[in-house]
Amino acid sequence: MSEENRAPQKRTLLSHTPDLRVLDATVRDGGLVNDFYFKDEFVKALYKANVKSGVDYMEFGYRASKDMFDPEKFGKWKFSSDDDIRAIVGDNPTDMKISIMADAGRTDYKEDIRPRNESPVDLVRVATYIHTIPTAVAMIEDAHEKGYETSANIMAISKCSGIEVESALEILGNSPVDTLYIVDSYGSLYPEQTRILLDRFLESADRYGKKVGMHAHNNQQLAFANTIEAIVKGACYVDGTVSSLGRGAGNCALELLLCFLKNPKYRIDPILSFIEKEILPLRESGLSWGYDVPYLMTGILNQHPRAAIQFEKEKRTDYRQFYIDILDTF
Amino acid sequence: MSEENRAPQKRTLLSHTPDLRVLDATVRDGGLVNDFYFKDEFVKALYKANVKSGVDYMEFGYRASKDMFDPEKFGKWKFSSDDDIRAIVGDNPTDMKISIMADAGRTDYKEDIRPRNESPVDLVRVATYIHTIPTAVAMIEDAHEKGYETSANIMAISKCSGIEVESALEILGNSPVDTLYIVDSYGSLYPEQTRILLDRFLESADRYGKKVGMHAHNNQQLAFANTIEAIVKGACYVDGTVSSLGRGAGNCALELLLCFLKNPKYRIDPILSFIEKEILPLRESGLSWGYDVPYLMTGILNQHPRAAIQFEKEKRTDYRQFYIDILDTF
Repeated sequence: MSEENRAPQKRTLLSHTPDLRVLDATVRDGGLVNDFYFKDEFVKALYKANVKSGVDYMEFGYRASKDMFDPEKFGKWKFSSDDDIRAIVGDNPTDMKISIMADAGRTDYKEDIRPRNESPVDLVRVATYIHTIPTAVAMIEDAHEKGYETSANIMAISKCSGIEVESALEILGNSPVDTLYIVDSYGSLYPEQTRILLDRFLESADRYGKKVGMHAHNNQQLAFANTIEAIVKGACYVDGTVSSLGRGAGNCALELLLCFLKNPKYRIDPILSFIEKEILPLRESGLSWGYDVPYLMTGILNQHPRAAIQFEKEKRTDYRQFYIDILDTF
Repeated sequence: MSEENRAPQKRTLLSHTPDLRVLDATVRDGGLVNDFYFKDEFVKALYKANVKSGVDYMEFGYRASKDMFDPEKFGKWKFSSDDDIRAIVGDNPTDMKISIMADAGRTDYKEDIRPRNESPVDLVRVATYIHTIPTAVAMIEDAHEKGYETSANIMAISKCSGIEVESALEILGNSPVDTLYIVDSYGSLYPEQTRILLDRFLESADRYGKKVGMHAHNNQQLAFANTIEAIVKGACYVDGTVSSLGRGAGNCALELLLCFLKNPKYRIDPILSFIEKEILPLRESGLSWGYDVPYLMTGILNQHPRAAIQFEKEKRTDYRQFYIDILDTF
């Protein structure tokens, strides 16, 4: 009997959960910090480190519409074409799967997503706000028909009412999507809230035969804590990025996640080497991300981090004034 | 009826908990980073910020034995004499109380702790390892007789067996101590473990008429998450330090805590000003603390952070080698 088909066991601190999948979103979420201008060496080194570490999925980037976004203004991983991915992974002769993210309403999915047998991609993750769920469903149906695994990643979930969440889960439950993702875009959820959302998502997942995923942000230093809650509750897909590289306060650190997980297939040392060799130079080059007071403030206020990103960009440190100003925009 | 004596209400995300007390340990735990060499201006500014922010207790430092520790080799807050505290707070004409920490076996408590009516100190926190509990009890009895509030802070609790914890709680339950503190010195506890420990502590506290406190470290970026768990579960004393200033990976950030708490008496803006004016210069001066990969490793392995502190001091970045080396000392 394959590991995947064993009956689910109780999740405890020392057990491992064979049905859990770790997705590395470093290039995709990190691309939001540097407009997707990663060097090929960086992406290749990450690919190798992920494979060695037993990471289950590596996300290469968005597949954004070239009609809506100027390829002159972004690095290639904003669009992550099959050819660009193939230049890194070849035929990907590994156990690790490849994912891309497609934004609902910002992807020319009919043309730009080719049938799976022509592509190195395994999983298409459709990122959607609550009001674009019907568009997301159309994209999911398209990707599903083309042979891909799919997920629906509901962004800014902390802004959605209970009624909206129920309605979204019903629509998505009746779609061919494989995984329903909680995306705490604003890093605003406390573990107590995460648990309540997970109960709702898991209940729907159960009813419709789906799985649940968790993507957390670190505005309140709770990305890892919320991800653990998700794992203990029963989520099957969890996202991390190396050294939390990602927009604003960043994500759940992949290294925290791999250290926590007890499945012997995961190894931390290749990721540690990658941090030494690739992440430190990135920081030294001036790229800035990770927890800081302004991100805490947007997290607390359940807002998009853009005001905090702007504050950091201007190298301001008048935190008190930022707080006073941002209260005004609540 | 005073707020303090109201019947305990259910703790929810939007309620406030009148019986909760926030203790700022910035100088005491931060002193472990700079050998307690804080300028008076720093400590005075922190005192003022804490008072304005509604913080309930400010801890000034240790009251270490001058026989065991050379006053030439440490700043004054290693010893935090009544006179030195008084030079900052005068007669402390505020609602904020003052605490010091006394290490079991490393304090000349009989001489150095004067009767409360001769001292600006309100609370004596006795820090103890599990094997020094009898010494701690002697110190607690002494401080209690001298008129102080007391707490027993059981350090390195993640290293103690269940039997040891039960035994310690029974001994302390029968002592005059007011508060039983969980101290996750190694930043090793997951929220799931914290909840189990809290259940034990709260059960004893209930039986013996004590309260429960939580002091967390951030090795796994879980200091705030564990502190929230403690609050939701029913802890009445929680510790924070401004910007997490503290040994190794640092502590639960006071600013996270104050933003989380809904009691209208707490204000965040004085702490934000303090960060701008006092913490940023401290970082710029080269003082280093906070989450980093080596602290994650000692946290995961449930070890004292000293190897990680040494690694950081040497400005090494060979994380993978550190990991390999430290596995050898497990």
